[in-house]
Amino acid sequence: MLKGHQTWVFDSKPVILSSAAVGGPFEGKGALADDFDILHEDIWLGQDSCEKAEKKLLEEACETAITKGNMEKEDVQFFISGDLMNQIISSSFAARTLGMPFLGVFGACSSSMEGLALSSLLVDSKSANYVVTGASSHNVTVEKQFRYPTEYGAQKPPTAQWTVTAAGACLLAREGEGPRINCATVGRVVDMGITDPYNMGSAMAPAAVDTIEAHFRDMNIEPSYYDLIATGDLGKVGHRIASDLLAKHNLKIPQSIFTDCGMLIYREDQPVIAGASGCGCSASVTYGHILKRMKKGELKKVLIVATGALLSPLSYQQKESIPCIAHAVSIEI
Amino acid sequence: MLKGHQTWVFDSKPVILSSAAVGGPFEGKGALADDFDILHEDIWLGQDSCEKAEKKLLEEACETAITKGNMEKEDVQFFISGDLMNQIISSSFAARTLGMPFLGVFGACSSSMEGLALSSLLVDSKSANYVVTGASSHNVTVEKQFRYPTEYGAQKPPTAQWTVTAAGACLLAREGEGPRINCATVGRVVDMGITDPYNMGSAMAPAAVDTIEAHFRDMNIEPSYYDLIATGDLGKVGHRIASDLLAKHNLKIPQSIFTDCGMLIYREDQPVIAGASGCGCSASVTYGHILKRMKKGELKKVLIVATGALLSPLSYQQKESIPCIAHAVSIEI
Repeated sequence: MLKGHQTWVFDSKPVILSSAAVGGPFEGKGALADDFDILHEDIWLGQDSCEKAEKKLLEEACETAITKGNMEKEDVQFFISGDLMNQIISSSFAARTLGMPFLGVFGACSSSMEGLALSSLLVDSKSANYVVTGASSHNVTVEKQFRYPTEYGAQKPPTAQWTVTAAGACLLAREGEGPRINCATVGRVVDMGITDPYNMGSAMAPAAVDTIEAHFRDMNIEPSYYDLIATGDLGKVGHRIASDLLAKHNLKIPQSIFTDCGMLIYREDQPVIAGASGCGCSASVTYGHILKRMKKGELKKVLIVATGALLSPLSYQQKESIPCIAHAVSIEI
Repeated sequence: MLKGHQTWVFDSKPVILSSAAVGGPFEGKGALADDFDILHEDIWLGQDSCEKAEKKLLEEACETAITKGNMEKEDVQFFISGDLMNQIISSSFAARTLGMPFLGVFGACSSSMEGLALSSLLVDSKSANYVVTGASSHNVTVEKQFRYPTEYGAQKPPTAQWTVTAAGACLLAREGEGPRINCATVGRVVDMGITDPYNMGSAMAPAAVDTIEAHFRDMNIEPSYYDLIATGDLGKVGHRIASDLLAKHNLKIPQSIFTDCGMLIYREDQPVIAGASGCGCSASVTYGHILKRMKKGELKKVLIVATGALLSPLSYQQKESIPCIAHAVSIEI
């Protein structure tokens, strides 16, 4: 049910029956390595292209989530997924493997929470009994498509972020044990005129702030309602801008509960410049690390605000600025 | 509410308050020219790139639909849209102009009905009062991205289709006068091994058949229930294959009620080879031509089965076959 202007409140509070995170070798050396279900030592995952490797990451995340939920693929009605590849081929080809009715979404790195919001709506409205939703990214495929092949060794400015090689997925149901989806706030496109594809954090921060403000306005609650508010992949630069903007707008979020998935996934000594990015970042951190913390009882109420930069290499070449968006989902246990 | 395996039945039957179709010069010479709200003589629409022209087509279709529904942008809660461009920039940049909370979808040329199905779900579940949904394509942008720039004058085989330069959109509401959405069937990915990007009709036909069969199975009705069953953009080749497959599967659809948007939009003497394609094909034919026929009383019950080929140029280069999908929406007046 719509609350305020852009927030859906789910009466039945759909439950995350199970979830899974799958990562690559660099993620296996990261700060959250223990929270992945599968870690690959080979960035190719034994495939003959990194695009096929990314698809496999997503398939494994979905299949692992289904298995952990003691379900079979045939029991699941719908698969909702998105990624950064042109024509979201990781998701579409994974949908071919999974064989379920499929709804492709695109919100760049906000796809993870766009998918979770829509999946929750399907379950809450009794349009599905079980839905699998996920998102993926691969460092090599994304760098090649949006910037340069990694083999070129191109130098990057201090605002650049490291695209995560990972996928995350969850199995959502109407009933059962697990964290529950309380509500979701669908974001508007915000574009403050940033044109630099090496500065995604700055571009996306205002979109994150816009959605966070809309969420608290629509729900008429205070930030202290949550134990953790995690943006998608703003990185260090975007996180600082978002914090400043929120303070300017008089929305006080204590730094102790405000974090960013792009700042959590790697260790300080990994050369990721301003932090992590990619659809697989918020997906794997949420469906791996954060849900594990919730199940351990460390966190009870969490708001995930996945952020997306909706540019294409072509829009950049045509000197367009970068439209950004953020979708927020509230999870409670 | 879920019926059968993959069909949503909408209890409140969301109403299409208004709709609009916008086309280019070639569409202005086509068979359905009278059904467009706006026809441009300039394929650039006065923009400095055809990508920006495509975005403008979509913006105009959405803005015209909103105006025809006597609404303001501010009254509409959500915009759901998709297109064929990498990272669906036509939709994302139109969302920036429209300023509404945005959900990007990707199902290639099935995006039109993926968007209408999801919009209906939003309205039916009271997650929105008003939703605008649309889809677009542009001959020059699509040909350049998926095949060759049109300026190359590359020869095409007899199975090739002509990408439509058009956009269609509609304004959906819970109450009011107009055609109503009865139900929607979400498709599975079907891939019969076709690898030729000049033969989309053959690739997509089995997906259309899969969704049509699922629709009649889930709804437990006969094809004669409908006055018209229109697939998205199979063209002549795909239409014949779909007809043959349906006959083989013992699902008898009289040829008098079975058509394809890709066979309707152009005249016989236009050099479109096997017919039309592109996200804007089913969108403009449905939201222009077919809805006008419904309002005139010529058609009462219609099933639109938008079909999508989920390939990317990269998946083709990597010798992958073409996964296809179709989403069906039932409209009644």
